[in-house]
Amino acid sequence: MNQNKKLYVVGIGPGEYEQMTMKAVRVLESSQLIVGYTVYIDLIRPHFPDKEMMATPMMKEVERCRIALQEADKGRMVSMVCSGDSGVYGMAGLILELAKEYPEVEIEMVPGVTAACGGAAVLGAPICHDFAVISLSDLLTPMETIERRLECAAQADMVICIYNPSSRKRADYLRRACDIVLKYQRPETVCGIVRNIGRDGESSRVMTLEELRDLQVDMFTTVYIGNSSTRAERGKMITPRGYEHV
Amino acid sequence: MNQNKKLYVVGIGPGEYEQMTMKAVRVLESSQLIVGYTVYIDLIRPHFPDKEMMATPMMKEVERCRIALQEADKGRMVSMVCSGDSGVYGMAGLILELAKEYPEVEIEMVPGVTAACGGAAVLGAPICHDFAVISLSDLLTPMETIERRLECAAQADMVICIYNPSSRKRADYLRRACDIVLKYQRPETVCGIVRNIGRDGESSRVMTLEELRDLQVDMFTTVYIGNSSTRAERGKMITPRGYEHV
Repeated sequence: MNQNKKLYVVGIGPGEYEQMTMKAVRVLESSQLIVGYTVYIDLIRPHFPDKEMMATPMMKEVERCRIALQEADKGRMVSMVCSGDSGVYGMAGLILELAKEYPEVEIEMVPGVTAACGGAAVLGAPICHDFAVISLSDLLTPMETIERRLECAAQADMVICIYNPSSRKRADYLRRACDIVLKYQRPETVCGIVRNIGRDGESSRVMTLEELRDLQVDMFTTVYIGNSSTRAERGKMITPRGYEHV
Repeated sequence: MNQNKKLYVVGIGPGEYEQMTMKAVRVLESSQLIVGYTVYIDLIRPHFPDKEMMATPMMKEVERCRIALQEADKGRMVSMVCSGDSGVYGMAGLILELAKEYPEVEIEMVPGVTAACGGAAVLGAPICHDFAVISLSDLLTPMETIERRLECAAQADMVICIYNPSSRKRADYLRRACDIVLKYQRPETVCGIVRNIGRDGESSRVMTLEELRDLQVDMFTTVYIGNSSTRAERGKMITPRGYEHV
């Protein structure tokens, strides 16, 4: 490995600067170029004002990763930023897939607080026991696969954390997901949503599965569907682990 | 709420100081008392040398949470530390369950990098698509529930991230888990383990499901069982999202 050819794939956490790890900050500060999706570059730019940054639009993931790898291959220290954790629906996988074309570039993942954890902290403790993380985006995954995963997770009484619950083209996907879970869980099952985790206008709400089914959410929302033990208490969503004497 | 009665439940990340979020550091620095399991207190003590800390042994979770709530109720600013994220098998749930006895104490969760994400960064990108997080500890969960969850996750072709894969009393649990997954996935399915994530002696290994089945691991290990798309490449474990033209 050529020590000068280094690419970091950095999870910046939910969005708030303070929720980045110290390692992520150090790595970005020492990078010569930061590459990322426009929205994430805009989030970090104020905190690294003198840094060269390159923003690429959504849906251009392959191109974005190639730019990062090519720039690193030129001998620059490059960071690719992702929101949340770089390894959960982030660019870590795609970078490693493309990396074989740039064998001299050393790649290091810098993990961050993923939305499942960032949003859970806002709601209380919804994923304090076994849970499944499922994206409703069918851009890269067949809808049948997504629906089978929802079905199995509900059947196994796992809490389900949903990423990408909606978009303009997929306005009814969350309703379909709720209908699948409703085959196995009661309509009163405790659910929660968090919008704009760690960003301006952060908001959250605890509700029942029945109410969630009729809700319109956007792509900045993370959704939690509880299991049969999940409770709502003082406005918080709690999935107990089962400690006795409580 | 009494502003002076505040309890933070803080995820300190995998263990390495640099992998804490800036918010976690600020909160611990401003706390008057830090409470936690002995191992986690030992991890952070060198970085907060002047801070009053209270360590309680494992299996004393209810007592530990009560101490933290009682001290906060006296008007002190208290932090309860958890490894990884405070909301993933952490103390967030138990604190909220007990909190109703201390209605004046305001509680805030401070999320961190959970082992699933910290370990994934070491292995490459094993959880870059839908995944289930399942603990093999049957101290608080019936074994049938755990086995049903493993079964459903494997059936749905989800990556499985296993916490608490073993202990002295549960030496063969990982083997049993692998046998369940082997009903649905090939013996060549790519798996990985990471030991001591972000701590001294961190080590990792990528292997097949068949090899994982015959492995002895300890409680400091996080295990990843890939799905049918997971690949091993240049020593890394990658679950692709399915971008085209790669």
